[in-house]
Amino acid sequence: MSKVALIGAGRIGRIHARNAALHPRLELAAVVDPVTASAGSIAGEWNARVSSLEEVLADDTIAGVIVASSTDTHLDYSIRAAQAGKAVFCEKPIDQDLQRARGAAGALREARLFLAFNRRFDPNFQALKARLDDGGIGSIESLQITSNDPAPPPPSYIAVSGGLFKDMAIHDFDMARWLLGEEVAEVWAVGSCLVDPEIGRLGDVDTARTVLKTASGKLCVISNTRRSGYGYDQRIEAYASAGMVRADNVLESTVQVFGENGAASDRLQNFFLDRYAEAYRREMDHFAEILDGATPSVGYADGVAALALAEAATRSSKTGEVVRP
Amino acid sequence: MSKVALIGAGRIGRIHARNAALHPRLELAAVVDPVTASAGSIAGEWNARVSSLEEVLADDTIAGVIVASSTDTHLDYSIRAAQAGKAVFCEKPIDQDLQRARGAAGALREARLFLAFNRRFDPNFQALKARLDDGGIGSIESLQITSNDPAPPPPSYIAVSGGLFKDMAIHDFDMARWLLGEEVAEVWAVGSCLVDPEIGRLGDVDTARTVLKTASGKLCVISNTRRSGYGYDQRIEAYASAGMVRADNVLESTVQVFGENGAASDRLQNFFLDRYAEAYRREMDHFAEILDGATPSVGYADGVAALALAEAATRSSKTGEVVRP
Amino acid sequence: MSKVALIGAGRIGRIHARNAALHPRLELAAVVDPVTASAGSIAGEWNARVSSLEEVLADDTIAGVIVASSTDTHLDYSIRAAQAGKAVFCEKPIDQDLQRARGAAGALREARLFLAFNRRFDPNFQALKARLDDGGIGSIESLQITSNDPAPPPPSYIAVSGGLFKDMAIHDFDMARWLLGEEVAEVWAVGSCLVDPEIGRLGDVDTARTVLKTASGKLCVISNTRRSGYGYDQRIEAYASAGMVRADNVLESTVQVFGENGAASDRLQNFFLDRYAEAYRREMDHFAEILDGATPSVGYADGVAALALAEAATRSSKTGEVVRP
Amino acid sequence: MSKVALIGAGRIGRIHARNAALHPRLELAAVVDPVTASAGSIAGEWNARVSSLEEVLADDTIAGVIVASSTDTHLDYSIRAAQAGKAVFCEKPIDQDLQRARGAAGALREARLFLAFNRRFDPNFQALKARLDDGGIGSIESLQITSNDPAPPPPSYIAVSGGLFKDMAIHDFDMARWLLGEEVAEVWAVGSCLVDPEIGRLGDVDTARTVLKTASGKLCVISNTRRSGYGYDQRIEAYASAGMVRADNVLESTVQVFGENGAASDRLQNFFLDRYAEAYRREMDHFAEILDGATPSVGYADGVAALALAEAATRSSKTGEVVRP
Repeated sequence: MSKVALIGAGRIGRIHARNAALHPRLELAAVVDPVTASAGSIAGEWNARVSSLEEVLADDTIAGVIVASSTDTHLDYSIRAAQAGKAVFCEKPIDQDLQRARGAAGALREARLFLAFNRRFDPNFQALKARLDDGGIGSIESLQITSNDPAPPPPSYIAVSGGLFKDMAIHDFDMARWLLGEEVAEVWAVGSCLVDPEIGRLGDVDTARTVLKTASGKLCVISNTRRSGYGYDQRIEAYASAGMVRADNVLESTVQVFGENGAASDRLQNFFLDRYAEAYRREMDHFAEILDGATPSVGYADGVAALALAEAATRSSKTGEVVRP
Repeated sequence: MSKVALIGAGRIGRIHARNAALHPRLELAAVVDPVTASAGSIAGEWNARVSSLEEVLADDTIAGVIVASSTDTHLDYSIRAAQAGKAVFCEKPIDQDLQRARGAAGALREARLFLAFNRRFDPNFQALKARLDDGGIGSIESLQITSNDPAPPPPSYIAVSGGLFKDMAIHDFDMARWLLGEEVAEVWAVGSCLVDPEIGRLGDVDTARTVLKTASGKLCVISNTRRSGYGYDQRIEAYASAGMVRADNVLESTVQVFGENGAASDRLQNFFLDRYAEAYRREMDHFAEILDGATPSVGYADGVAALALAEAATRSSKTGEVVRP
Repeated sequence: MSKVALIGAGRIGRIHARNAALHPRLELAAVVDPVTASAGSIAGEWNARVSSLEEVLADDTIAGVIVASSTDTHLDYSIRAAQAGKAVFCEKPIDQDLQRARGAAGALREARLFLAFNRRFDPNFQALKARLDDGGIGSIESLQITSNDPAPPPPSYIAVSGGLFKDMAIHDFDMARWLLGEEVAEVWAVGSCLVDPEIGRLGDVDTARTVLKTASGKLCVISNTRRSGYGYDQRIEAYASAGMVRADNVLESTVQVFGENGAASDRLQNFFLDRYAEAYRREMDHFAEILDGATPSVGYADGVAALALAEAATRSSKTGEVVRP
Repeated sequence: MSKVALIGAGRIGRIHARNAALHPRLELAAVVDPVTASAGSIAGEWNARVSSLEEVLADDTIAGVIVASSTDTHLDYSIRAAQAGKAVFCEKPIDQDLQRARGAAGALREARLFLAFNRRFDPNFQALKARLDDGGIGSIESLQITSNDPAPPPPSYIAVSGGLFKDMAIHDFDMARWLLGEEVAEVWAVGSCLVDPEIGRLGDVDTARTVLKTASGKLCVISNTRRSGYGYDQRIEAYASAGMVRADNVLESTVQVFGENGAASDRLQNFFLDRYAEAYRREMDHFAEILDGATPSVGYADGVAALALAEAATRSSKTGEVVRP
């Protein structure tokens, strides 16, 4: 059993707390949050103590720290936890600022830091990756990633989100790197404001397409919109030399209703905490492996690389030019 | 090129006329119907002559006769055509009366008679049969045949139809024999009148389930209703020792509409002449092969066997007892 | 918080223990099993005590008892728990012997007994039921229940299972009653031994079809096999006056691989504890509601009714005759 | 009945000849081809005469001319036919050279010229368009067109094809214009040579992505490859303000085979003449309407506009820059 502490008792922190507490090889020992009531609520549920960052870092019985606080604290807390000798489970993104993120290389490049990109742990995308890796359909040539939110966040969130490419597409940039198996050499992106003019007034776009190209010529298209009109659309198609593999959306049930106008399937699983519930469990499972000595499958460098693509896409969408990240 | 004549210029006769006329190895030479206008309409369309049965049978240049007249004439015309040395394409069923049908054995058992059960020529059911025959999923053990009409025929038709089992399920009995690869030893059936009480007053049922069992224990369930509420439902599932193969319905298009309540597929292809258009073409192709010397893949004996099952099911549905056909 | 005790620390007991322990309104207080090590293992995991039936029944702080012991003890333990004033969560079936089960009516008819037929709590079947209940496709007329196991149990299990109809189809009889909304008036069943001759030697069948008919003429077909060759096949189709609704199988992922021979979907979720994991959670949720005062949605009378249908089907399969349960 | 003549007795000419000859309101009167044997073969099949272009244009009884000759003759023959007062059915593309095509404006802008882009007449894409037009999912915002060939043509064809964008994607540019309902303002494209290096040596690409943007910000991605590895992939997804509609591939049958590793659907319908057989019939139906007085739904200006997009995409793929067509 490894003891872990949670930093950040918000919505996603609550998920990680539960998964850590229920994990057979982990014990949730402490919860840290400036809002003591939030920390207390989670700690109480899982028999953990409310604590402070300092106390956690000083506690030698705590082997791992889960950083689920606000984005602007990810880097700082991760560095401090790493320096205290802890394994770090850091929520994505590593940061919103590429330069700042790169600046942490000295402290984090060698750290046992697991950057929790949840898509990599989704059973469907993992199954897709496995089909690519088993070679049955040859080698990957191109990729179509569709990632649409059901509804846009409030303008207040848009204003601090870092923009669609850093906020939404960051996941997709990581997926592209993971699946293409080769670094991206060129980025081109285009965005429109079709959903809500307020988003445009805030300098952001709500609908975008990004095209990535690797040095060997592999292509990837990422489709994003802030509001799909039909749910949380999370799909990937990977085209290889001898076939194609796709991971489709998850539906709320397998029910179909047949009437005289055709058959209606059930709606898409729309809330991201439901859609990726199993992914979050598998993330925690990976963190348990790391605490037992495994190397993080996705870490600091991946976080920086995804952020670099997001920054390149943001720039391209403003200039219309191809950007080399 | 083989010359053929059509007997019966109704709805299905018109289909066969077109398929014969357009077939590269067939020539539609003559059309026969007591209603001269009907015969003339089809003959005119395809450059054939209006003729009489006697004249057709006496014409040595005509090699094949397509019997698409009313059911009560199938046996008589088939026998006469066979005796005149013609190859016969006979619409299903062979007759509504089992004893009468059996009585024609002397004249028809050895005849070149093709009994046109259209399901056997549907590309989907043929593909299902091919998957069973290739052995990839082992040997067949049981069968589920779903065959539902979109809407019931008028009461006047019900009255002369011979009843649901002889009229609708006759197709399914033939499919069962074709796919099970073994004769049926026991028949049990149950019917209800749930759609239209008028059907019940006419002594018929509108909803039925029939269970067939072969000597070796293979099972088949046939589900029929006169009104499905969602279209012309034509499906088969074949369960084998190492897997299952199914043929699903044909939809009007591949379009799916995704909204906040889920995805709606297009409606089922509902008109039987559309649904089985390709089957009718393949029937004519098989008739051309027969005229070139091939043995009919389905003939008189199959027509009698399907009728015997229909009669057994009718009896079982009235007595509640297992009937050996 | 209501305190509950678990009787029976086997495979299914472990599932219920976890769901009770993690339920926000339940506390797993005690675990009872003649094999103390099994009881201790579960109790240890969830901070409960190892106890005895007597002690549990005498403990006034325990409000509910979960009976997950062997089938032959279900009735006895349920009666004793009910008499001690506890709410009872009883695993299916109520018993293997219809007369014995009926004999418990005096003790159990009025008891707060929840009989845990898991299919009723599966999200897919619940969604199907909801679609039927909302009236959008009219009123139900017939039902097709497909329930096939991936592989047969060992002969030793077959010998004490009560036979296919009481062991496997018991679930489907309950589903039929739940969905048809009307009691079954007639039962007819047929079985074959196609999978393993050893099953036949033990007097059982491994492949069966059962047809149910209600007084108003509604029909239901139940298809069962002990070995499907393609996984744990759990499907229902409900045909109503204005449409059809079906619940399909659950797949391991949404991945499809496209090659030159077509597209391959992922395999069926095959292990029943995975397939019905959410159903077990919802069962426990219902038990929590019962402990808070709700009436069990499925209870003693339902257990007896399903058993009566299983007994009728067993008899019909031996005699070939329609049985009125 | 309108008399029509076919110019060009190749593979696609044979299709149009059959559809014209079988059309109830058209009569195929003449077939023209420099290879007399080809013209004779088709003419013989449908009772038409072999003729010359001059004779056809001079024949006042011929109301329509089908131009199915080689691409470099499309413009010339169309102009001559139009000038002779005929309605023109012209195969796509209008030409490979944008300037030349634009140069024909004087002669063709007002002509009764139907440019036969077959995708517009595919039942699936027509159903998709109808769903967009009926407003049920709001107004279109973006589009994903996937159009992959099963296998690349021989290098000799590549050399004269005009390149992937003019040869393959030309269809997709037309679809984009048709579905977006607004002209394209910006084009960006990227190509790779991943399938066959010989294609690269010929200066072409075999894998490409094109992004289109309209003045109001609507986006369209076109995905093309010369070799898909899994068949003739022809799909469209249209994203609208309140939902999404997609048209999926057409499969060879509805058969699915279930084994222990999952379910295998049938392969894609791979030969374009099969895949678009119904589209070709509907094209001819539209030509019959035009001969009866209807306005062509797609004509010269559409051919030029699609070609302009293809030329823009070609240029963008070489420069990496956004091109305004």
